[in-house]
Amino acid sequence: MSGLRQNIIEVRNKIDKYLIKTPVLRFDFIDSLCNSEVYFKCENFQHTGSFKYRAALNAIKSIPNDFKKRGVITHSSGNFAHALSRASHELNIPCFIIMPSDTPDFKKKSVLNYTNKIIECEPNLKAREQNTKTIMKEKNLFFLHPSNNMDVILGNSSCAFEFVEDYPNLDFIFSPIGGGGLIAGTSIAIDYFSKNCEVIGAEPLNVDDAYRSLISGKIETNKSTNTIADGLRTNLGSINFPIIQKNVKEIHLVSEEEIMNSLNIILNKLKLVVEPSSAVVLAALIKNKEKFKRKKIGLIMCGGNIDFNNLKF
Amino acid sequence: MSGLRQNIIEVRNKIDKYLIKTPVLRFDFIDSLCNSEVYFKCENFQHTGSFKYRAALNAIKSIPNDFKKRGVITHSSGNFAHALSRASHELNIPCFIIMPSDTPDFKKKSVLNYTNKIIECEPNLKAREQNTKTIMKEKNLFFLHPSNNMDVILGNSSCAFEFVEDYPNLDFIFSPIGGGGLIAGTSIAIDYFSKNCEVIGAEPLNVDDAYRSLISGKIETNKSTNTIADGLRTNLGSINFPIIQKNVKEIHLVSEEEIMNSLNIILNKLKLVVEPSSAVVLAALIKNKEKFKRKKIGLIMCGGNIDFNNLKF
Repeated sequence: MSGLRQNIIEVRNKIDKYLIKTPVLRFDFIDSLCNSEVYFKCENFQHTGSFKYRAALNAIKSIPNDFKKRGVITHSSGNFAHALSRASHELNIPCFIIMPSDTPDFKKKSVLNYTNKIIECEPNLKAREQNTKTIMKEKNLFFLHPSNNMDVILGNSSCAFEFVEDYPNLDFIFSPIGGGGLIAGTSIAIDYFSKNCEVIGAEPLNVDDAYRSLISGKIETNKSTNTIADGLRTNLGSINFPIIQKNVKEIHLVSEEEIMNSLNIILNKLKLVVEPSSAVVLAALIKNKEKFKRKKIGLIMCGGNIDFNNLKF
Repeated sequence: MSGLRQNIIEVRNKIDKYLIKTPVLRFDFIDSLCNSEVYFKCENFQHTGSFKYRAALNAIKSIPNDFKKRGVITHSSGNFAHALSRASHELNIPCFIIMPSDTPDFKKKSVLNYTNKIIECEPNLKAREQNTKTIMKEKNLFFLHPSNNMDVILGNSSCAFEFVEDYPNLDFIFSPIGGGGLIAGTSIAIDYFSKNCEVIGAEPLNVDDAYRSLISGKIETNKSTNTIADGLRTNLGSINFPIIQKNVKEIHLVSEEEIMNSLNIILNKLKLVVEPSSAVVLAALIKNKEKFKRKKIGLIMCGGNIDFNNLKF
């Protein structure tokens, strides 16, 4: 496993120069509310608004050389599409995005800034996967999964690595769980580079596949995707799950109302633009503040996708 | 004038421990767009979301001792009300706020966190001033004007002082102009503590009183207050104006559309929550980017008052 430690260091060295070293902010409003010291790692200020840019950069830099001319392909409507399109543009590698036809305009526009190779498909997982396969074969492209990919996980790990390097005394880092890429990456960085930090998962009650998977010991699926935290609707992946099983002991669930309350606080009190998926971690901390009182807590923020035109408190 | 230099230093020493040292952020999106180096001083992360907390702290700490038990009074619906109520709460001094009856609920709630001494009045300047006078006399309170007050100006100066201390090579700092308190404070700090920095004013076209006042040499009034930048609707004051006349050579005007475009960029691309008044400075820079290209530009952000429920792009 010391090979993994070395990997994390190498990945960081490889992608660091393309990244913004995102600031860590504190807010006395939150410290008082939670009776703890809360450190916000503001990856919403990362290029493309999310830590996924770290993942995309590392993943695209890791593809075999002969694919670099033909390009990469992914299916995503959100942050990974945005991140991969920018990273590929930066590295001058063609980038194809399979995107559900019901993707909101504001998300599509973000991707169009960097690539015009968007292929729309019917808005369901089967159509996404089928279309991706067809075009990948047709054009002989390299497929990059948005979360269930070790290079993606290693790219993500650079965020927590940076975080604990600057704040070595954190007791806990809260990470949201969607596909599982961020929490897997966070947990391996924490495992090798922190003193006594533990990773806590946060998930919407309505898409609690990771919570149930940890209990049952196998990957469970979501029956609905009915959450405002649209970045967390995806299911756990086969590469992420064993890492999460090994490193994450606790996942906390929060209701839609708790997510909205937390989003309201982040926008109106903290003055940060984040997406609802980020609000899930603060909601989990607020809900469990007794348990975490007087501790040093790190929260990773992410703000790629939020539509102000559809926001009502 | 070296007395003023000393004052600025003393004020900073007096209020510094109550303040957040707000971060300075950069965004390559903006640097590319403007072809310059742009530094955002994020006073939206200051307590109460605005630089006015600096002003309120200094002003309230400067009142004569015998008023400290009876309290202070101001008329404001916005940032100064919020800032003064918090500063007075922090220093345990009673605080009365005269507030127009049409003040939006979200602004009122911010103030109610710190004082329940809100007195509503008819929504016009005459009623505000009349009510303030009556209650001030009745309760023997100390009146603090939100912008036209030397202690307020000196409190504001601490923001630019901090900014140029950390970024001594800035060529320009852009400041919005409403009552004139921020730009007056900024300009005196710049005058004494920067190398070659110049202060540039930014004002909505629809409330261009400062622009016209600089030309005519006397304080002009606004015929309308029809701007989304609600923090800038107030008129220049008699204490601010001579300072602005002395130190500010350029004021740039921007349309409502330019303000909204800039607010859209700040929220959606930069992931910062700011109020429309802040967007005015970025709008002025974008409009005049040819003139400022390849320069180092500082922009002071402020985010106290923004209502997401009424925001449409």
